[in-house]
Amino acid sequence: MSTKTTVRAAASQDLAAIFNLVQQLAHFEKAPEQVTSNIEAYHTAFDQRIFNALVAIKESKIVGTAIYTLTWSTWKGRMLYLEDLIVEESARNQGIGQLLFDAFIKEAKELKCALAKWQVLDWNEGAIKFYERNGATIEKEWWNGKITF
Amino acid sequence: MSTKTTVRAAASQDLAAIFNLVQQLAHFEKAPEQVTSNIEAYHTAFDQRIFNALVAIKESKIVGTAIYTLTWSTWKGRMLYLEDLIVEESARNQGIGQLLFDAFIKEAKELKCALAKWQVLDWNEGAIKFYERNGATIEKEWWNGKITF
Repeated sequence: MSTKTTVRAAASQDLAAIFNLVQQLAHFEKAPEQVTSNIEAYHTAFDQRIFNALVAIKESKIVGTAIYTLTWSTWKGRMLYLEDLIVEESARNQGIGQLLFDAFIKEAKELKCALAKWQVLDWNEGAIKFYERNGATIEKEWWNGKITF
Repeated sequence: MSTKTTVRAAASQDLAAIFNLVQQLAHFEKAPEQVTSNIEAYHTAFDQRIFNALVAIKESKIVGTAIYTLTWSTWKGRMLYLEDLIVEESARNQGIGQLLFDAFIKEAKELKCALAKWQVLDWNEGAIKFYERNGATIEKEWWNGKITF
């Protein structure tokens, strides 16, 4: 890394940058029109502690985020669920994803979770290799069910 | 149904029966040793509102449960996540899973969620057909990543 990147807990004033990264990810996953939430909903949910986030800062700018929720595994107990791990395209391949993932795992341990969990698209080889390098188990036998209202 | 089954929100005193159903499900999924949580952890998490549950009552006995968490979809916003939907083996094929699922969807709407989501094992044809009959989209392209501590 040419300049130092730091990771810290997100604050309310970071939400606009975080939501912007979410929209960038939707473009990468070829589904920008699927993002139907908005910045007001992000503020409300963040205030209600429905989700939390970490942000990566480089040259005073947010270049990445890990968005997560404290949830429940009926088998394991307290679980930290990583909903999104995003690094801005211009800031990739500098170890920033690793910094964010490390901070996420640290947070899971500090919150006394028994398990950290997330999802990855089956075609996203780079991400799958990244998680495997980090000692993750990749499960291929679960399908998602969903209903949108 | 020979006798009436009712569904209501779970209370603290239902947790022992709920945890018992979780253990029964782990047997059905051929992984009883994977359940490492315990009843004390269930009580703590329930009190902290980390999860919530619905229970199905037949002849004054809990014969099924839907265990869920209020969580966050970065694309859609507020999401109700169904962690487990369980009906006791002796009470199956009487429409009790449908009653619980209907109550779960009703709860998601009442909580103003944009999305309800859950997972199903790819070999569980009965469950997949059940969810499809209920208008769910089944996604097959996501894999789970996880790290247990």
